[in-house]
Order: sequence, then structure tokens, then C-alpha cells
Amino acid sequence: MKSSLDVCLSPELLHLYEVKDKTVVVVDIFRATSCMVTALAHGAACIKPYADLEECLVAAEEGFETSGERNGQKVEGFDRGNSPFEYMGESIKGKKIAFTTTNGTQAIEKCRPAKNLMIGSFLNLHTLSLAIHKLSDPVLIVCAGWKGRVNLEDTLFAGALAEKLEDSFTPEDDAALAAMKMYEVAKGDVQGFLKNSSHVKRLARLNVVKDIGFCLTADQFNVVPVLREGLLVI
Amino acid sequence: MKSSLDVCLSPELLHLYEVKDKTVVVVDIFRATSCMVTALAHGAACIKPYADLEECLVAAEEGFETSGERNGQKVEGFDRGNSPFEYMGESIKGKKIAFTTTNGTQAIEKCRPAKNLMIGSFLNLHTLSLAIHKLSDPVLIVCAGWKGRVNLEDTLFAGALAEKLEDSFTPEDDAALAAMKMYEVAKGDVQGFLKNSSHVKRLARLNVVKDIGFCLTADQFNVVPVLREGLLVI
Repeated sequence: MKSSLDVCLSPELLHLYEVKDKTVVVVDIFRATSCMVTALAHGAACIKPYADLEECLVAAEEGFETSGERNGQKVEGFDRGNSPFEYMGESIKGKKIAFTTTNGTQAIEKCRPAKNLMIGSFLNLHTLSLAIHKLSDPVLIVCAGWKGRVNLEDTLFAGALAEKLEDSFTPEDDAALAAMKMYEVAKGDVQGFLKNSSHVKRLARLNVVKDIGFCLTADQFNVVPVLREGLLVI
Repeated sequence: MKSSLDVCLSPELLHLYEVKDKTVVVVDIFRATSCMVTALAHGAACIKPYADLEECLVAAEEGFETSGERNGQKVEGFDRGNSPFEYMGESIKGKKIAFTTTNGTQAIEKCRPAKNLMIGSFLNLHTLSLAIHKLSDPVLIVCAGWKGRVNLEDTLFAGALAEKLEDSFTPEDDAALAAMKMYEVAKGDVQGFLKNSSHVKRLARLNVVKDIGFCLTADQFNVVPVLREGLLVI
């Protein structure tokens, strides 16, 4: 008997889904969840996700580095921004990171009641799919979107993950089917498929073109961030 | 200068879009908006859309026929259900129809502040695109979905309409791009593309397979229902 797999295309639709008995995968490809995976793969001790900017700042007093963005820009006074390249190398090792972003950490906040909460990105796609297989709980992939609106890159990732899980999990709702159909078309050239998307255009304006290519590269890291007592760890 | 075109994939996301300066097209392919187009093409005088079932019943006292469904089933005591084949022939001529459905009339209710509110379906796709071209206001296509969730058939129709309008309207948000990409893949065989969708499976259980084929047939009628003083007329 296969378990079910649903895709929630925006956090604004999350109230229509049950999360508490599920493995919930939160995805914000550009760039929150890509950064989180990169940081933990490079030896960060943990990441504490914050929906609220002010609360995130307070964490600095508890030994956390402050990290993230608002509207795609690094927050003034924060230690790090939202480029995965800021979460590599020696400087990240052992660090406790307090992280807040426009979309990704908001989505995590809403998904806290999940039975298992995992962080997804193309960077850890294969390892993530193995971890989900092991648990066999029904799956809900939650796309962070952009300020509530559906976006292409998170939808494509949902399709890629659903495809990886297809032998053990049945795509249940139309959003899962739509994501899989789109990924099927896009997978030969994901970056080309996305070139007219609103977020890629927004990021290009912010000069983070290098980040885009990196965030779309599958299977760079074999870590799966999971939420344990409010902290993302591997 | 092209006008913009956005797609709202679910009425639950409508608060993220501006409607009041726009031509808003409401779509509920299976089957509310397909029925509405069919009824007005066959000489119904007008359709009064109701979100609320009880209010719809009261309209019977004002000379309206009561029509529609809840959860895909005709409402007990209603004059007509939600199959387009019930809205053809002599019996519909001159009738005033009070109409309420699970998704479609709920979406119309939320879109009332639109500058122009039009009803879309594959059945009137071409004529609808001509009417939108004439107005040249920015366009928002609102998919009724299923109880708030995104569905494939309304998304595909949004893609089909966006493709028709492409020379004068620029798809703005990612949802519009996603709908167009999906329609591009599906258009050779829309019914085949939809065969695993949740709604097609639901309708198949309700034995309305004939309705599905009809609702997906483009350009059967050259009418465009528009909302005028609370009534849908052509």
C-alpha cells in the first residue's frame, strides 16, 4: 500500500492540508532552503528559523549568528545574507545560525506541527528522497512561494521530489500532478525553463545570477536538515 | 504597451491580487462556468450567482429557477443540477436561473469588485478572448479550484486563454507562466492529460463522463457572460 503525496503550492493554502501526521518537506529554492542545506553540509551546528525579524535579532544575544534577508536583500546588521556561498568554508563550522527570510522561514513556522519536518532543495534531493522513503509517512511538500504567490522554482522542485518518490508514494492532489508534469517538461534544462520566471528576473536584478545556477544543481550534499526542538539539525 | 495578465490558481489566493481595475475571468471548467455559458448560449435570460445555498433557494420566490450542486451532486429540490446538458434546448429559453455551486459561484462572489467580470470556459474560449482584447484592461484569470485547492482543468484553461491573449497581454506572475507551460504540453490531448486528475476521477465516480468531454470542447458557443448589476448576462 503506497502512502499519499500532496503538494501545497503556497503557504497561503496550508490550512487546506493536514500536516500533523505527515512528513512535511519545506522548500524555498531561491534561496532559504538551499542556504540551510549548504550551511549544515558545511558543518554549521544548527539553524534556528524565525518568521519574525526582531525575534531573530534577539537570538544574537544567545550566541547565534543572525542571517537572512527581506525582499531578497541582506538585512542590515545581520552576519550573513541569503546566498548559499555565504554558508560555505571554515567560517560556518560549528556556528549556530538564527535565520529569517521573506518566504522560507515563514513557511517553516506554519509547518511546525508536522510529524517530521524536513528541509528540501535540489542540493540534497537524492538524500532527502532516501530519508522520506525510510519513514513511509504520507508526504506533504510545502512550497514557500513568493509572498504567498505560487512560484515556478519551488513547484519544479516539488515535481522533482514527487518523481523520485513515485514508486512508494502516490501523487494525490492535482497540485502534485501539475508539479510532476511541469518537472517532466523542465528537467532537461531547468534553468532555461525558469528564465522568464518572476523570481529569476528579480534575482537577476539583485545580481545573484551565480546563486541561481548553484541552487538548481542537484545532489551536491548528502544531508537532510530536520526540525528537532525548534532547531534544524542533520 | 502590452497589458499584464496574471493567473490566480485558487480563490484562497485572491487577496494577493488586485481585482478592481481589471478584467477578471472566473473559470470553473467542471462544471459551473461551462453550464453558465451553455445556458446563456441557449437563450436563458440571466443567471444570478449565489455563494450561499439558502439565499439561492429564496430566489425561487422571485421567479428564478434554482440550479447547481454541492459536492458535485444536484441539490435536493433544485430545478436543475450541474450538467451542461441540463442547460440546453427549449426548456431553458427565457429562464432566469439562480445558480449556486461548491466552487464556481464562490469564486464569482469574491470577484464582484472587478472592473469587468466575465465567465470563461473552453466552450466560449475564442469569443471570450476577442471580448478581452477589445477592453485592453489588465487581466486576472481566477481559477475556482476544488474547495480552495488548485486543480488541473481550471489551470489548463487559464493557460489556453493566456496563450490566446499573448500578443496583447504579457503573462506577469509565475502562475500564468506555469499555466501556459502546462497547456502547451496538454493541448494535443487535454482529456488524456487530465485523466488522472482528482476532479476527473471524482466526476467519473458520479457518472458524468459525458460532461467531461463536452466541457473540454473548445469554441462551441459565441457568447461571453458578464456580470451586470448582480446578474450574468450576455
